Amino acid sequence: MPEPFIHHLRVRFAECDPQGVVFNSHYLAYVDIGITELWRAALGSYQTMLDRGLDVVVAEAHLRFRNAARFDDELRLEVAVTHLGNTSIVSHHGICRDDEVLVEVEIRHVTVDRATLRKAAIPDWLRAGLAPWLIAQRSAPAPAG
Amino acid sequence: MPEPFIHHLRVRFAECDPQGVVFNSHYLAYVDIGITELWRAALGSYQTMLDRGLDVVVAEAHLRFRNAARFDDELRLEVAVTHLGNTSIVSHHGICRDDEVLVEVEIRHVTVDRATLRKAAIPDWLRAGLAPWLIAQRSAPAPAG
Amino acid sequence: MPEPFIHHLRVRFAECDPQGVVFNSHYLAYVDIGITELWRAALGSYQTMLDRGLDVVVAEAHLRFRNAARFDDELRLEVAVTHLGNTSIVSHHGICRDDEVLVEVEIRHVTVDRATLRKAAIPDWLRAGLAPWLIAQRSAPAPAG
Amino acid sequence: MPEPFIHHLRVRFAECDPQGVVFNSHYLAYVDIGITELWRAALGSYQTMLDRGLDVVVAEAHLRFRNAARFDDELRLEVAVTHLGNTSIVSHHGICRDDEVLVEVEIRHVTVDRATLRKAAIPDWLRAGLAPWLIAQRSAPAPAG
Repeated sequence: MPEPFIHHLRVRFAECDPQGVVFNSHYLAYVDIGITELWRAALGSYQTMLDRGLDVVVAEAHLRFRNAARFDDELRLEVAVTHLGNTSIVSHHGICRDDEVLVEVEIRHVTVDRATLRKAAIPDWLRAGLAPWLIAQRSAPAPAG
Repeated sequence: MPEPFIHHLRVRFAECDPQGVVFNSHYLAYVDIGITELWRAALGSYQTMLDRGLDVVVAEAHLRFRNAARFDDELRLEVAVTHLGNTSIVSHHGICRDDEVLVEVEIRHVTVDRATLRKAAIPDWLRAGLAPWLIAQRSAPAPAG
Repeated sequence: MPEPFIHHLRVRFAECDPQGVVFNSHYLAYVDIGITELWRAALGSYQTMLDRGLDVVVAEAHLRFRNAARFDDELRLEVAVTHLGNTSIVSHHGICRDDEVLVEVEIRHVTVDRATLRKAAIPDWLRAGLAPWLIAQRSAPAPAG
Repeated sequence: MPEPFIHHLRVRFAECDPQGVVFNSHYLAYVDIGITELWRAALGSYQTMLDRGLDVVVAEAHLRFRNAARFDDELRLEVAVTHLGNTSIVSHHGICRDDEVLVEVEIRHVTVDRATLRKAAIPDWLRAGLAPWLIAQRSAPAPAG
């Protein structure tokens, strides 16, 4: 069972709302940071993929909010790839503080031709790049790919 | 079958990313606007609920991205309440441009005591306020409440 | 003395921070909305300018925060063009609630060729479009253009 | 002449707009991060100040945009305190990429009683904490304090 990909970030004041907690939409922005950093680990940078004529777009996302992150919290993103289909990449993101998973996100990206934005099969170099973080698909219901 | 609650908004330049489309996290911010405006229609304002010692927090959200909104697009939010449990409010949000649903969001809020943030049963006045937009739960899989 | 251009907007929950007020950076986003809407009044749409090969970029901004806007406030943007140079457009934005100016922003845009991003002289059609909202430059220190 | 306070950050995709560059308002959010990190260096954390009953609010900001930051750029914030008045703190922020200052921001905060939000004199412990980064005021026009 591979280890998840890890990235750390700190909650910004501007991300918190009058309830004193991170506003819900920002967790999707955190997930995007996790994807960017995973691509850096897999390919050198996100730009590497763009330079090869490929991009990814988000098709579906499922967020479960368990507890709230607060200003200045140090968060740990734990990212795992749970499914690589023909054109679909499903990843699981745990947004954690210490030993607690605050928010869980399952997100499905689709690979597209960068120029036409039409679906394009996941190339071998991307499949190989992501392989170290690919885990067997969880039994819990994930966005289908 | 009741009509959905409708609210219009226009895409801001700052919400669009280098792909030329609305960045995915902003759709959750649009949903929050839809909730605020639905509460205004139901209760006079969101503040009315706060003044009565009640608040809501987001527990779960499921987004399906079908097509992209772009800068200056006029969007129509179509909001329906699909489930009112003991402490759970599930709503369905269609983010539409003309006749097309661009993004669909199902979101589950939980009612909490504003002071303690502990779960609090949905009071009758909120149930009555939301009743005009409560539809029979869709058969499609929704976040369970 | 011409009337300022007016646009209304409502403060979103996601724009407010744990101090309960609009986070300071969002006022620059409001100014951008004011510019978009002024361009709509002047030219039909911002896109009209882009279609003619011209764009504007921000060179300088000066914000004075007098009082705070809060969640659900209805704000009135009052926009006036205070200077049209060769390639510089200075505008003044009052972000108001009722009779009070909460935040004042002076901002200088520069017109650029959309393709090369090099400075391009303000064309006559843009000068004419903005003319109804051009006022004599205020004596207060403005970003120089 | 003291060294500026340094903090590094990386540009997020969600902060970039359809022109492919960081949207202007986000530079004010970067400045806020610089302030948070300067306070950490000065006092242990921003919360330390809040726990002592003091807060700061933004009164004025002046931004000069020289060049654009782009997605995935590594930026270096250089922060210096340029003026400590009775209740005013003016700081200068250079937002840099390699040897280039992309955006310069001068910002004036006012110290307030956290409970009443009325102006409160800068206490000695804050003055001492910020002293290592206090430089003689620049001759360039700064927001008056």
